[in-house]
Formats: sequence, C-alpha cells, structure tokens
Amino acid sequence: MRRLLKALAPVPVRVFAPVFAALLSLCVLAAPAHGASGAVEDGYDLWLRYRPLDKAAREQVRAVATAIVAPGAAAAAPSGSAPAPSVAAGSPPPAGRVAALPSAAAMAAGAPAATPLQAAVAELQRGFGGLLGKEPPLAASVQDGAVVLATPASMPALSGMGLKLETLGQEGYLLRSTRLQGRKVTLVAANSDTGLLYGAFALLRKAGTGMVGTDGKGGKGGPAALSALDERSAPKLQLRVLNHWDNLDRTVERGYAGESIWNWWALPEVRDRRYVDYARANASLGINGTVLNNVNSKPDILTAPWIAKAAAVADTLRPYGIRVYLSARFSTPLELGATKTADPLDPAVAAWWKAKADEIYKTIPDFGGFLVKANSEGQPGPQDYHRSHADGANMLAKALAPHKGIVMWRAFVYAHEKPDDRAKQAYDEFKPLDGTFDANVLVQVKNGAIDFQPREPAHPLFGAMPKTPLMMEFQITKEYLGYATHLAYLGTMYQETLGTDMRTGSGGASATVAQILEAGAQQGGSRLTGIAGVANIGSERNWSGSHFDQANWYAFGRLAWNPQADARALAREWAAQTFSPEPAAVAQITDMMMMSREAVVNYMTPLGLHHLMGTGHHHGPAPWVANLERPDWNPVYYHRADKGGIGFDRTAGGSNAVAQYAPGLARQYADPRTTPETMLLWFHHLPWDYKMASGRKLWDELLARYDSGVAQADELRQRWAKLKPFIDARRHEDVAVLLDKQYAEAVWWRDASIAYFQSVSGLPLPAGVKAPGMPLDYYKSLKFPYAPGRG
Amino acid sequence: MRRLLKALAPVPVRVFAPVFAALLSLCVLAAPAHGASGAVEDGYDLWLRYRPLDKAAREQVRAVATAIVAPGAAAAAPSGSAPAPSVAAGSPPPAGRVAALPSAAAMAAGAPAATPLQAAVAELQRGFGGLLGKEPPLAASVQDGAVVLATPASMPALSGMGLKLETLGQEGYLLRSTRLQGRKVTLVAANSDTGLLYGAFALLRKAGTGMVGTDGKGGKGGPAALSALDERSAPKLQLRVLNHWDNLDRTVERGYAGESIWNWWALPEVRDRRYVDYARANASLGINGTVLNNVNSKPDILTAPWIAKAAAVADTLRPYGIRVYLSARFSTPLELGATKTADPLDPAVAAWWKAKADEIYKTIPDFGGFLVKANSEGQPGPQDYHRSHADGANMLAKALAPHKGIVMWRAFVYAHEKPDDRAKQAYDEFKPLDGTFDANVLVQVKNGAIDFQPREPAHPLFGAMPKTPLMMEFQITKEYLGYATHLAYLGTMYQETLGTDMRTGSGGASATVAQILEAGAQQGGSRLTGIAGVANIGSERNWSGSHFDQANWYAFGRLAWNPQADARALAREWAAQTFSPEPAAVAQITDMMMMSREAVVNYMTPLGLHHLMGTGHHHGPAPWVANLERPDWNPVYYHRADKGGIGFDRTAGGSNAVAQYAPGLARQYADPRTTPETMLLWFHHLPWDYKMASGRKLWDELLARYDSGVAQADELRQRWAKLKPFIDARRHEDVAVLLDKQYAEAVWWRDASIAYFQSVSGLPLPAGVKAPGMPLDYYKSLKFPYAPGRG
Repeated sequence: MRRLLKALAPVPVRVFAPVFAALLSLCVLAAPAHGASGAVEDGYDLWLRYRPLDKAAREQVRAVATAIVAPGAAAAAPSGSAPAPSVAAGSPPPAGRVAALPSAAAMAAGAPAATPLQAAVAELQRGFGGLLGKEPPLAASVQDGAVVLATPASMPALSGMGLKLETLGQEGYLLRSTRLQGRKVTLVAANSDTGLLYGAFALLRKAGTGMVGTDGKGGKGGPAALSALDERSAPKLQLRVLNHWDNLDRTVERGYAGESIWNWWALPEVRDRRYVDYARANASLGINGTVLNNVNSKPDILTAPWIAKAAAVADTLRPYGIRVYLSARFSTPLELGATKTADPLDPAVAAWWKAKADEIYKTIPDFGGFLVKANSEGQPGPQDYHRSHADGANMLAKALAPHKGIVMWRAFVYAHEKPDDRAKQAYDEFKPLDGTFDANVLVQVKNGAIDFQPREPAHPLFGAMPKTPLMMEFQITKEYLGYATHLAYLGTMYQETLGTDMRTGSGGASATVAQILEAGAQQGGSRLTGIAGVANIGSERNWSGSHFDQANWYAFGRLAWNPQADARALAREWAAQTFSPEPAAVAQITDMMMMSREAVVNYMTPLGLHHLMGTGHHHGPAPWVANLERPDWNPVYYHRADKGGIGFDRTAGGSNAVAQYAPGLARQYADPRTTPETMLLWFHHLPWDYKMASGRKLWDELLARYDSGVAQADELRQRWAKLKPFIDARRHEDVAVLLDKQYAEAVWWRDASIAYFQSVSGLPLPAGVKAPGMPLDYYKSLKFPYAPGRG
Repeated sequence: MRRLLKALAPVPVRVFAPVFAALLSLCVLAAPAHGASGAVEDGYDLWLRYRPLDKAAREQVRAVATAIVAPGAAAAAPSGSAPAPSVAAGSPPPAGRVAALPSAAAMAAGAPAATPLQAAVAELQRGFGGLLGKEPPLAASVQDGAVVLATPASMPALSGMGLKLETLGQEGYLLRSTRLQGRKVTLVAANSDTGLLYGAFALLRKAGTGMVGTDGKGGKGGPAALSALDERSAPKLQLRVLNHWDNLDRTVERGYAGESIWNWWALPEVRDRRYVDYARANASLGINGTVLNNVNSKPDILTAPWIAKAAAVADTLRPYGIRVYLSARFSTPLELGATKTADPLDPAVAAWWKAKADEIYKTIPDFGGFLVKANSEGQPGPQDYHRSHADGANMLAKALAPHKGIVMWRAFVYAHEKPDDRAKQAYDEFKPLDGTFDANVLVQVKNGAIDFQPREPAHPLFGAMPKTPLMMEFQITKEYLGYATHLAYLGTMYQETLGTDMRTGSGGASATVAQILEAGAQQGGSRLTGIAGVANIGSERNWSGSHFDQANWYAFGRLAWNPQADARALAREWAAQTFSPEPAAVAQITDMMMMSREAVVNYMTPLGLHHLMGTGHHHGPAPWVANLERPDWNPVYYHRADKGGIGFDRTAGGSNAVAQYAPGLARQYADPRTTPETMLLWFHHLPWDYKMASGRKLWDELLARYDSGVAQADELRQRWAKLKPFIDARRHEDVAVLLDKQYAEAVWWRDASIAYFQSVSGLPLPAGVKAPGMPLDYYKSLKFPYAPGRG
C-alpha cells in the first residue's frame, strides 16, 4: 500500500496516510467496478483477473496502453443496456460496425457488448484498468502509446502497410509495435472485429503475464518486450466448440460444478449476467461455438419456446464471436407427433427437418447447426430404420446447408448386440462410410476408443477417414478423473493425444493427430476442421467446481486455437493469470499441474488399465464389478485379471484391435516390448511375473505404480502448502482442502485396487508394500446413490 | 465522491483529486474486504450490505461507534481459519468464552467465527466499517462512544445496574445508551453471547436504516436517536426454524433458487463459505434452527457418512446460535435392514432409534432433533402399523429426550382413502390426540388447511389443541405464488394468519394465532413454542432466485422473533437495508411490497378460490383439470364451478368444515354475508348472480378481481420504473425484467381462468371486460415438463 502511495502521490505520504486509508476503506465498499465479480478472490474472475501489476511491470505496460483507438467504436454512452443486435448468418459478424458503447453503468451492471469491437474495447479498458490502476481512455485519434484496433475496413491505411493481413483469415490477428500517423502505437489488426477481439485478449494476456512472444509455445520476454511486439496468430481449426451436456431441467450429465449455467426456466426473458462473463472467458481463448444441451437430447429443445431460449443465449454470445449449436434427438419429429417415422429417407421426415432449420434460422440467423448422438447407448438413430449413419447425418445436413449450418455426428457408438471388443466398434462402423458424408458433416470422434479414461491410446479413426472431416471430442469435465475434487491438469492428456503419431501419412509417413485435425478434409470446396470439449462449466461461483479445474477449460480452448501448443506453456500462462505472475509461484504451480494427471493415472488405472470405476456414477474404484447386463459394462471385461495375469489382449491373438491402426503403429502396439508401458495392459494380457523395463515383475510394478500415485498425490498437497505466501488465503484454503481429499481418495483407489487384484492373483505383497487399510468387502460395500453428474 | 473527499480530506481537494481517483480505482481492484461478496450489487449481500451512509447520518452514527469493547473476545489473531469448537448440548453455547478472533485474512476469506461473541464483534466491525468507511477498533477498555458487549458473566458490574436482564431470557438483548466507568457508551447486554449477537445485529439494523425504536413495529427516530437508546427485546417463540426441502442429490423440492445450498457431495471436507453468510443472515433475524433436508426424507440421511456431513454444517452454524435438525423417514431402520419392522411399539425399533440418537449426539452435541412427515402423501408412518401419530412421535421423542432433542411432527396429512373434505383431515386426525404427545413433541401445522395457497383461512387446529404445543409452518418459497418470478411479499400473508382471531379463548374469548403460538403448551415443565418456514434459499447468487424474494426470508425471520410484528414495518426495514435508506425509495418500495401479494391473489385465486394451479409443478393456471386419480388432487374438486355457480360449500349443508372452528368463528364463516369476501368461495358455493357487497353480481365481481390483479401487476412494474434513480443499475434491471414477466403471467392467469370459467358458466363477458387473448384449448395445451422445484 505504502509503495503504491509513493508511486502515485505527489506529496509526502505520511501526512495523508490516514485520509488515504479512510478513503480506501470506503471505496472498497462503495464502488462496483470492473465487472460483475468485485475483487474478492472466489474464483469467479477465472484467468481474467487483471490484478494490479508490480511497479516495474506497471510502468512498462502503461507506456504501451495510454489510450485505446478503435475506429468504428463510438464513445457515446446510451443509457440502459445495449440492444441485442440482429446479425445475418456468416462468420464472423460484419467488421467495422459503428455502434455506441453501452454506458459505464450498464457495463458495470454486466450488460453485454453489442459488437465484437465494443467487446474488445471494453475488455482492453477493463484489463489495462485493472493491471495499471487506471483505465486507458477511448481516444478519437492516434497518440503515442495507444493501442489501435483496426481492420482494413475501419482503417483503409492498413492496406498500404504490408501487413499481409490476408494470411490471417477471418479470425486471426496481428500484434505489432509500429508507427501510425507518426505515433508509436501497438497495432492490433485483423480482418474482422472478432479477430480484433481475439487480438485484444492476446495483448492483455501478454501484459498480465509478461509472457511475450508466446503463442501457447512458451517463451518469456517480459513486459519490456511489449514495446517490440511482432506477432501474428490465426486459429488452426475452424470449429472450436464446447459441448454442454446440460439437461433441460438444469441438471448436467457428468457435471460437477453445480447445475447448468443455462437457467432455461428463466430464459428467454432473464439473461443471466454470467452468460456475458462466459462469453468473455471463451472469447479470451478463441472458442467460437457452444452446443447448449446434452447429446442425450430431448425433442423439446427444438420446439418454439426452447428455440426462443436458445436465441436469447445466442444474442448474448454473438458479440463475443460465439455461435450457438443444439444437440438434436434424431427421433424428434416422430416424438413430437409431426411425422409417423424418423426414417431419414422418408420425405416427410426430411421436410420436417428442413422446415425446422428454416424456423431456427429465423430467430438465430447465425445458428451453428446440430450435434447428434445416434444409435448409441439407447439413443434413436438411422439404424433403427436400417439406414446408415451417413443417411442420417446427410438428411440433417441438407436441411442446414442452405443456411451454412453444419452437422457434428458423433462416432461414439456401440451396438446393442454383444460386442467383439468395444474399442473396435466406432472404427468398424464409421471407416466404411468414409467419403459418403455431405460436405457440411463432421464426424466427431472421442480422443480414445473407450470413453474418456485417464489414459487411452489415440482413437484409431484418426487418420483412417481421409475423405471425412473428423472433429476431436475431448472431455474437459472429469467424469473419470476424480470429478472436480482431484487436481488433474488435462493439458498434458490433450497434448498426448494430439501429439500421437498415427503414421497414416502417405506410405506410413508421420502424421500426428493434430496434423490430421488441421488438415481436415476437402469436401465440396470447403475444408472443415474442428474440435469439441465436453464442458466443465456450471453454476458454481468458481465455474468449474474447483479452481484448478478452470485450467482444463483454459488448456482446451488454447489447444483448440493451436493444437500444437505446449501443455506446459499453457499451464504457465494459466497459473500466472489465475494465481500470481510471481515467477517462483508460476514455476511451482506449473510443476504441480504437469505431474497431476499422471498421478491420477497411477492411483486409478496404471499401466494401461481402464474402465475400473464404480457403476453409473463412475466415482471410485470398482474393478470387481462383473454383474452388469452387458459384458462391456463390467470392469472385469476390461482388466481380465485372473490367477494367470492381467490385461486386455488386443493383438491378433485377441480382439485384434491393433489392426485398426496404421501398420507402423499396429506393429508397435502388437508387441508388449515395443508398446509403451503406460499402455501395456490396454493391448496385452500378460502374466503376473512378466518382466517390466524396470526389472520388476508386472505384479510388483503394478503395486509400485499405485504407490507412486499415492505419493504423487501427497506431493501435490505438500507443494501447495509451500505456496501459501503467494496465494490469497481463500483460494489457498479451497485448494488445500481438495488436495487433502484427493490424497484420501488416492489411498482409497490404491487400497481397493490392490485388495481386489490380490484376491485375484493370489500373490503376496512384497516387503515394504503396505497392506490395504480395509478388507476387500469394505470397499465393495461402498455405495454412492447421490453422486453428482447423473444424466 | 467529491462530497466524500471534502468530508475526509484535511487539505484542498482539487489538488489531489487525480491522485485520489487513481488510488480509488486501484483499491477497488486490489482489495478484498468486508466479506466474501465484494461490493457489486448482485444481491449476494442480502440486507447486510452496510453501504456507506450519507454524511449527516454518518457523523451521528460514528459518534456511537468509536470502538468495540467485548470482554472475553480476545483480539489476538491466530493464523489460518478458526477451529470448529466442540460445544456441549444446551442452548445457547456458554457465554463469556474467551477465544481468539480469526485473523483478518481468514475472516476476509470467509472463515467462520468460533463463538457467538466473535461473530458479534466481527459483524459490528464489518457493519460499522461499511456504514462509516472505517472499522471501529476492538478496544480493551471502555471509551466514549464505544459499543460495549457484555453479559453478567463477562462483566460482573452489569448486575448492579438494575438492567433486569433476567427478563430477557437466554436469547434476548438490551440496547441502552448509558454511562459505564464514566464513559458514554452504547451497551449491548444479554445473558448469553448469542443474545449479544442478536443485539449487535439489532444495533446495526438501526444504524443502517435510521429506524430506531422499532422492533418490527414501525417507528422512526433517525440516527440521532442512536445516542438515546433504551430498548429490550426477547424472542416470543423458542424455536425459530427454517425447513429446507433439500434432497440429498442437491435438488430442492419446491426450490426456485438453484440447487441446494448444501453441497452434500463435497461435505464434510469442503465447507462452502456460503454457510457462514447463511448463518450471519439467519442470526441477523434471530432464526436459531435449520432442518437441513427434505421432509420427504431418505434413510441415508441417518447413516454415518451423512451424519458427518450434517455435523460439518452444524460446526459452521453453531457460533451463530443456529442448531441443526434433520428430517427423519419413519421407516429408516426397516429400510436400512436393521429391523424387521418400523412399528413404533416394537422394542427393537425403539432401541434402534435410541442408539441412532446417541450416535448423532456424539458428533452433533447440540443437535436439535427430528422433523417428521408421516402417513402423508405416501410417506411411511405409524399408521402403517395401526399405531397413532402420537405413538410414532413419542417413540422418537423418547430417543431424543435424554439429549434434550425434540420432535416436530407434521400435521399435514391426508389419508389414502377417498376424503370427505381434505381441508378437514388434519383436524380430524390430530385433535383427538391432544394431550397424548410427549413433552418434547411439537405438532407442526401449516398456516392453512389445504396447502400454502395464495390465501387460506387460518388452520382450524390453531387453538384446538390446548394441551399440545403447535408449531406454525409457513412456506417462504413461493410454490403457489409465482415461484421466484413474481413479486409477492409474504409478510402480509403471514401477518394475516398470525393476526387471525381464532376465538378459542375461554368462553370464546379473543385469541390470535400469534397468541396461541406464543402461549405454547405447558408439558412436563417445559413450555415449547415454535415456528417453521419452508426455505426459499438456494445456490443462486442472490440466494432466493430474485431480489424481492429475499424479503420473505427476512419477514419470516423477524416475525418468528415477534409474531406480532407489523408486516409494513418489516417491509420498510428490509427495503431500507436492501435497496436504499432514502425515505422516498423506502416508501415506494414498501407500497409495492404491501400490494404485491393481493395482486397475486387477485390474478390467480380471487374471492377464496384455491388449488387451481397446474398439476405437479403447480405453475400456471389449470382450473380445468379433472382427470387425476384422487378427487382432491383436481382443481375442479376445489372450485366446483358449474352452470349454477362456484365455490366449495364448507357450511353445514356441505362438508361442514366450518364446524372445526370455534363457535364464534364458525358462525361467521357459515354465512356468506359475514364471511370476508376474500374467503367467500372457500366456504360457500354461490350462484353466479349472487350479489356482492360491491353491488356487482358474483360473475362480474370475479372478472373484476382478475382484472384488478392484472392492473396491480402492471402498476408494480410502473412503480418500479420510477425507482430507477434510487436503485443500482443491475438490480433495477433484474427486478424490471421479472416484473415484466410477472405481468405477462398475470395476464395468462387471468385469461386462462376467465376462458375456463366462462366455458362453465356460459355467461357473457360484460361490456369493457376484455376477452381472453387465446381460446381455452390453447391454455389447456401448455405443458411444463422441465419446471423447477420437482421433488
């Protein structure tokens, strides 16, 4: 405080200190400012906290943020909140739109911006205002130190500057320290207002962290480098989409952060101000689409009252560059009584969908399209009428095509019949359809072939459908990784999949999943590319159920922009913005994050084990479950442990799932000696005395992995304890409580798993390995009928 | 701002204004202070906002709050959060406990106080700090202008001052401007620390509103009167309890404010900081108990893991004088497999409950007891074994008695057999049991005999069971009054019931419901009295789903303390604290509140109509429903409208429910000419051309009431629009949006009801009465499968 006073006061501080103190105390109480959240560290502000910089950084940042110049963004302040604009279809909304900014009071009250340019200006004022303690004014003309937001449309002079803006596409941006009209400025340039918004967030990220020169790739630079910016960035995937598994009654399937952010009941009249902050957070990452409702969908969502609700959300999100999509239930017209079948080849059905699409686009002119889960886990689909997935998807695609809408058709299917190996089914069903989908269909494929396990090999469909655009589906919510309780940074998991070399290039050449996604598929002249993340966002104050779970939303969004970004660099960015830019704190938090998911793998499902969790709710260990109707619902189906050994033989001698991979990879996975040990028991059934790389027997190695998981969980909480001086009291305690709980649950997973596997293997625990705390029957007796996140 | 600067700065303002401005801007961003919420007006702070007073009031208040003196509350600040104390059973916790205050950082982070005295000191510092801009320090010795918190135990000198503290009981308090050790002080005195906490809140309420000399009875005085305080207050009812109908999966039956505040899944490890603010809000009203779970209970709540969760909540609430209760399912031991029956006379069953009570009290030493819904709406109960309600309640009471726990046994029952008149059932079943309940049983009776309708006559059981303590059950959540959407201030409704003269005194003498409740019943030496409110509290940021719904929590709590308080005075208090102490604003808001419930009655169920709402969810009009299994589930059962007339004949010629009232009241209700018109059709079936006091025919009067309801809804939103200058932008818009929606729903209720009743009466609409906007079939077609609040 005193340092702050010295920095600002032109008179001796001592004399006025009491007055200052009184004022400070007052103003904290009196003044709502800079957003909806107030300043208390309850997690609401996410990574957009914009807390004051230290003095040195502040001076450097202030020099490059003396004012905001944004041609086309009028400074007039109409009273009341901004009207929701009506925007014609097409992405992004037209640039250079001249519109008045909402009034200061309206913005403080959480009113949405009316255009992306307004959103960009407001964010720069909020952000620099927070970092510097003073909002840079919106200036009409260029001045030294200004941030200038411009497109070729709003500032024709840009065209002559050799900026090569055409390479940025419709969403990319350029940040450059340059001279404009003789003044030293920071130019944020783009081809659209949405590009400017992304550029504004990128500039604030650099200013707040001092991490200049990064684009999710690491690098430092420090705030001084802000005055020598020269960076261009454009998204590598077109569709960067959240999937909300949110039900119409406001429950959230696999949600661990309270109920749905969408207050469906109150919509469309009541537009919760959280929607604006949700939009800001997503725009800060470059996320440009959101599917509002659960893939296990209901017909109601496509009736007029619900379309009106979705339209109200769309109106709020639109100025932030985000389109709304809906999950459609394939049997909707049949269930609404409008048709007598849902057969996709029935003309009445196709006509109904076409009319429905027309109806939607009347109120949501930039509606994104449908996400469909069909013929999977009891959902209806085209196979009910002996039609193919392509028949179903293409029928919907034709209804949407006139409006430039798309269909995201999920490949997560499994047949009702007794399966050969569930890991093989999506490939078996979809690969033969390659090349038969309409141009505006993407097939959305989960990262692995089972279901969002703590670790899975990359899905064999990646690279296997060269004529079909594949969309990645990651899970951000931690259905299988400890809900919102456990610290498990998923950036490493995403990177592991995205970086997997599928060897599906020509002649077995290298092709990582990221490259495959980025390549998309040329169909009908358009090259569609995309990625989806199952959201972990709810109504809890901290959005994600825990502070660290925000990092997974962050990492997903940043990887969606650039699938080749580095998980560690993203962790650093996130930690610096979310907790503290102090380098020692950033380093420590980043290390914790980087070890965290491996800890979870170790104490839950080491060495390639998978699907060992409790029935239905998926909470806690239950490797003993063997009584469920379908074989492939049972953990015993997956681990296949018996007196002789453990693991799922997916080689030619077993299910031969390895054959779904390109030959180079298939060969590697076919041999336990060349299979990474992290995936050993995914592909191989091995005897308990199989000799591991460590020299240990498999049984001993398995025990050691469980123990190392517990030790890592313990280390996480010990590291966090040391961070206390760097972290505000409230969030430090929040996290500490959860880390203690995580540790206890790690011990539970370890003890229950060992107790069970020992009962199967009949092997003794080697010296030094602690016996489980309770007998196996105790672990079997635990029930969780009220676990959150049920569908 | 400028005025503020002038008031505080000892130097010319102009020179330093920019510095001040910069500082102000900074500090808003940097400083978390005064509680968990920050300063933005999002409703989180409820009526405990403590925003800065205007200059005149500030100077007067500052003079009486120069310091806090609280013998027994040490000023030492241990690091970390306060430990949860272990408190022996008995109410309230022992006074004069010497304990360290949690550190400033811990309190800012939302840590709970450790004792009621700490809570009182912390609240005074927070409250005066907010009102005055500067926290009064905690002083070790008495000084001029200090607020002194003292009990006879902590300050023996009190005994000689003639304060008559013995008349205040264990929870009352005294506020007196007096001299102590030669200094002018404001003395807050009580016999317990909890009394001091209540006194502290009362003092802050007066300081914040300028309403001195009120105790829920009106009066003004202004802040100047704070220096001449002489007031004593003690609660008139012992048990002032919230009933949470919160399920273990965190849904809330009849909840319209998000999910349950109790994050059961995260408990007991994670203690949400909302629990502390919940405790503060309740303590500010004098609420001293809370039933955590739904009366439609589950056996699980009484298993060890759930008892531990309840204990964690109890630990947080205890320092605020609040005891925890649980709803118990009568068949719990049977369902848990511990007994072979739930027969209350089976020794094994009684033994199980006794052991269970012992188990609970080990972890919750001041556990309050059980709330039981038995043999009602499908819940199990003693009648399943041909035992009486008294048999069931007494068996539980005997298990709790050694620990001083109580049973609250609900009288809301209705038999499975076809009923005579549902309004009569509770009386018929319970009155014969008067005098047969154990001393620690209260029978909890809803305010009316049907079910929380917009208007009901007072329940005939009040005054009819003189040997049994009756507990009032009000609904705070608006199951039947427009959810959280409609503005309907229930203070008037509560007061209407509490003020009803049941004429059950000796020889038919006057006895209001409030007096009957306050009299309680002498049983076994203890005089039990109580009141319960079904909570409208959830996880929404504003707690209650709308800003105005907070007023119903407030009014309930204040009426629980003093059932003879005045609803208008409470509305004024609430408005001044919640929105603005500006007299013009308070007057206008109070007027809106006072008319609001009558508006709802008029557009939903005028003239004594009742139970006309949609099936199951109870949203919207459905007077036509006639197809439900039980006759008394159908609206047509209640309104009995046909070509000849409308209304439920409850006179001797009909169900004779009037005979359940004392003779004087029964006579009044038996004659339509002496029945208040507000309850006319509750008691009488009358022809459409029945002549009303207005001179109009009943049909015309009914139409006029519907129209006046719509006009009142319209007036509410127009009045609110005029309040814009007085209310922060965000909350003003929040309320405005809901008032518009309320108006639209008022029109819907009016139109649908008129369309239906016209279809039955066959009568034309008189000139000037607008025809419904849509045909009756449209209103019948509306469905709300995803309405909130389902059980």
